[in-house]
Amino acid sequence: MKPSIPRGTRDFGPAEMQKRNYIFSILRRNFELFGYEPIETPTMEKAETLLGKYGEEGDKLVFRILDSGNFWDSVKDTPFENDYISKRIKQKELINIPQSEMTQVQKDEFNRLLGYFTATNRISVQIAGHISEKALRYDLTVPFARYVVMNQHNLAFPFKRYQIQPVWRADRPQKGRYREFYQCDADIIGSDSLINELDLISLIDKSFSELKIPVLVKFNNRKILSAIAEIIDAKDKIVDITIAIDKLDKIGKDGVVKELTEKGIDASAIQKLTPLFDFKGSNTDKVKTLKTFVGENTIGKKGIEEIEYLLNNSKAAHATIELDITLARGLNYYTGTIFEVKANAGTFTPSILGGGRYDDLTGIFGLPNMSGVGISFGVDRIYDVMEELNLFPESISKTSSTKLLFAHFDESNRDHCIPLANELRKNNISCEVYPDIVKKVAKQFDYANKKNIPFVCVVGSNEMQNKRYMLKDMSKGTQEEMSLEDIIKKLK
Amino acid sequence: MKPSIPRGTRDFGPAEMQKRNYIFSILRRNFELFGYEPIETPTMEKAETLLGKYGEEGDKLVFRILDSGNFWDSVKDTPFENDYISKRIKQKELINIPQSEMTQVQKDEFNRLLGYFTATNRISVQIAGHISEKALRYDLTVPFARYVVMNQHNLAFPFKRYQIQPVWRADRPQKGRYREFYQCDADIIGSDSLINELDLISLIDKSFSELKIPVLVKFNNRKILSAIAEIIDAKDKIVDITIAIDKLDKIGKDGVVKELTEKGIDASAIQKLTPLFDFKGSNTDKVKTLKTFVGENTIGKKGIEEIEYLLNNSKAAHATIELDITLARGLNYYTGTIFEVKANAGTFTPSILGGGRYDDLTGIFGLPNMSGVGISFGVDRIYDVMEELNLFPESISKTSSTKLLFAHFDESNRDHCIPLANELRKNNISCEVYPDIVKKVAKQFDYANKKNIPFVCVVGSNEMQNKRYMLKDMSKGTQEEMSLEDIIKKLK
Repeated sequence: MKPSIPRGTRDFGPAEMQKRNYIFSILRRNFELFGYEPIETPTMEKAETLLGKYGEEGDKLVFRILDSGNFWDSVKDTPFENDYISKRIKQKELINIPQSEMTQVQKDEFNRLLGYFTATNRISVQIAGHISEKALRYDLTVPFARYVVMNQHNLAFPFKRYQIQPVWRADRPQKGRYREFYQCDADIIGSDSLINELDLISLIDKSFSELKIPVLVKFNNRKILSAIAEIIDAKDKIVDITIAIDKLDKIGKDGVVKELTEKGIDASAIQKLTPLFDFKGSNTDKVKTLKTFVGENTIGKKGIEEIEYLLNNSKAAHATIELDITLARGLNYYTGTIFEVKANAGTFTPSILGGGRYDDLTGIFGLPNMSGVGISFGVDRIYDVMEELNLFPESISKTSSTKLLFAHFDESNRDHCIPLANELRKNNISCEVYPDIVKKVAKQFDYANKKNIPFVCVVGSNEMQNKRYMLKDMSKGTQEEMSLEDIIKKLK
Repeated sequence: MKPSIPRGTRDFGPAEMQKRNYIFSILRRNFELFGYEPIETPTMEKAETLLGKYGEEGDKLVFRILDSGNFWDSVKDTPFENDYISKRIKQKELINIPQSEMTQVQKDEFNRLLGYFTATNRISVQIAGHISEKALRYDLTVPFARYVVMNQHNLAFPFKRYQIQPVWRADRPQKGRYREFYQCDADIIGSDSLINELDLISLIDKSFSELKIPVLVKFNNRKILSAIAEIIDAKDKIVDITIAIDKLDKIGKDGVVKELTEKGIDASAIQKLTPLFDFKGSNTDKVKTLKTFVGENTIGKKGIEEIEYLLNNSKAAHATIELDITLARGLNYYTGTIFEVKANAGTFTPSILGGGRYDDLTGIFGLPNMSGVGISFGVDRIYDVMEELNLFPESISKTSSTKLLFAHFDESNRDHCIPLANELRKNNISCEVYPDIVKKVAKQFDYANKKNIPFVCVVGSNEMQNKRYMLKDMSKGTQEEMSLEDIIKKLK
């Protein structure tokens, strides 16, 4: 058996872990500098907690867990199973009759059954409802809302939390898109003040500067999108419109128009929308044009007011943000500001951060009027950008956690090293004793080199007797005879 | 809808996270002090990678992922589905005939079908094979072995790795037993030297001393258990015997005897085993008795030799270990030394660390002769022990990540605070601006208290004008007027 891992998932070896931890530690430090506190939620959530929150397309990407034990018991003898089996039998009877010999009734029945059994997705969805009550976390925002509702009486509101955990999506894997990836989220819930948006903009700005990634911070406001839907009289199509506009970068203007048409938006309405695809100029210019477009529409005016507040105050947060009216963010729950960050250099185009305000995400779980806003750093994509742009400090890949390797010639030399190693560790010096007896010391030096261990201490019979050890500096190639105490002093 | 989380899973709030991170950081530091390097593997593994490695009882506890999309397509029209449906139809026809009116053939058929459909587990297992190709990580050892085989050409052997990630088991939740829990593993693979066992014993000893948990470190050797199976002539029953003996603590001597009988081990063989359940005395006494029991059995003698090496050399590792001949560790893959650690105080009885040597775990994946040995710290149980014994440093629960809160009276005061906050953060001082406009400053002080924020800076119109701010020390209750520079100097 040749082992492999599921498509869209990855292993991380020691070198990748060091780089990933470098990103995590910068984000974690910044989250704490801004007063966000850590929480963690379970990998598995009840399916009902997640489904219905991410839009139709999102729901399809939720990984479900098969119930443990005799899960088929929950399907057996249900009306669903009875119906399925009787339909299956009828189909199998009919399939043996040549089309030419079928009566009209049989033909109709056959076609009806054919339709039923080729619409397998409906069958799968029905069965899934019986045999899978848990699902894997799809993002960190919905579990956070669920957490807030369950712990509302113990939390100090407004509650600022950060959360660094993986999420899973059954998406088609491709460059920058994984089926398991980490999100690093910061949210503040229980306050509708726009100062929270400013706080997040500062956090974005500071984090990416420290990571040294040049970025473009785009924002928009869902209220503008709602206003547009009202103006073109397609209020019930707001989700379809945002999903279509969100694809502008990927499928172009023509693609968006095509998708809008397919979703039943008529040509004159689409005509009204098209100017939005070509918004140009400075933020101020854009706001001016937008004002004309929105006119007296109430929600639209509120959206513009929020946009102007952020534009006027973001300078205090030292950040440059760009209004992008075509930014939509597919997720169902956003209601106000939405954010997106892309790298402003290199060839990597997917967004590396997303976020926005949700006015009532906790309402679904029984706690209404809890406005929140948050952002999510996509660490795996940040990693890809940093690799391409060569932004990891050189020191990272050259450091080993082990500072010293004890090498030796025979069993008694080796066993002599064990208490020495423990002494070093007591002094916080990371070290190892090469475990096997190998004739050639060269092999042990090889091991040290491969692992980037900077010092090797060779212990032979003389060294054991004199308690003075040869310490070799692997990068300089020099060596020096020293006592254990001096080695500790040198490496501490 | 009242939200909840799946049975056996937990949320961790900020206070729990601080305590958990305290444990993680001690373990991580020690892993690195001993030269172990970090890796991470995916949450989802192919089901075939995991199944068959944990024994029959373990396999049942593996959580499986439902294939995404139209998973039922893979069942439809398979011989299995055809067989299932025709059986189901026959059963439904027969169920309508009163027993008294059935012919003998019908009766036999009915009973046969009844047997088939009540053995639902077989049906579930068959269906699962079609609709679920992925599963959740059950431990970190098997994914590690899979990782080593896939990356064998890039690794420096012997390879020492540590891994801190959650695992999932569909076990019945109870005290100390969760369905999602973290393992912290250290393994060394590619060396069969017993010095690695000593290295791990030192690591165990040092880690638990730093956590201040008094522990009992027990060990045994699977070779002894193999010898016993040979001696009582039940070689094919070795797994059953280890599983039964492993339960000695839980079900007592009578329970073990009962289970062994059920597994088909005859009374005279069990009779031979029973002295093992009552091994008493010092390690030396036990080895002596064991030598008599094992006699000239080859594998038994090898086991004793390994045990004696560890007993003779563990003093160099400063650790006290206790030989426990009834220790078995249920997992299939162990072949040599096995470890188990329990807290030696309080009422918490489950083990908080387990581990052992596996001679050929990578063999299944195509890389034979790679002996490895490892241990796994159970962080969630360590947490429970430390809570019960009150071992978390008091400082942990009293620290907030936020050092200072800016409080204010109106919008202009508040907006004045934004650049001040950014200035503090530039100097690595964690702070927040209270986001909402509330008339009462008391509410803002409340927030600071609930979040354990040690300093509050109240900004009103005077402060804005004079650029001197009132800094209140929340624990002392004192306050002082200061410039921003002085605040930075004080809190830095």
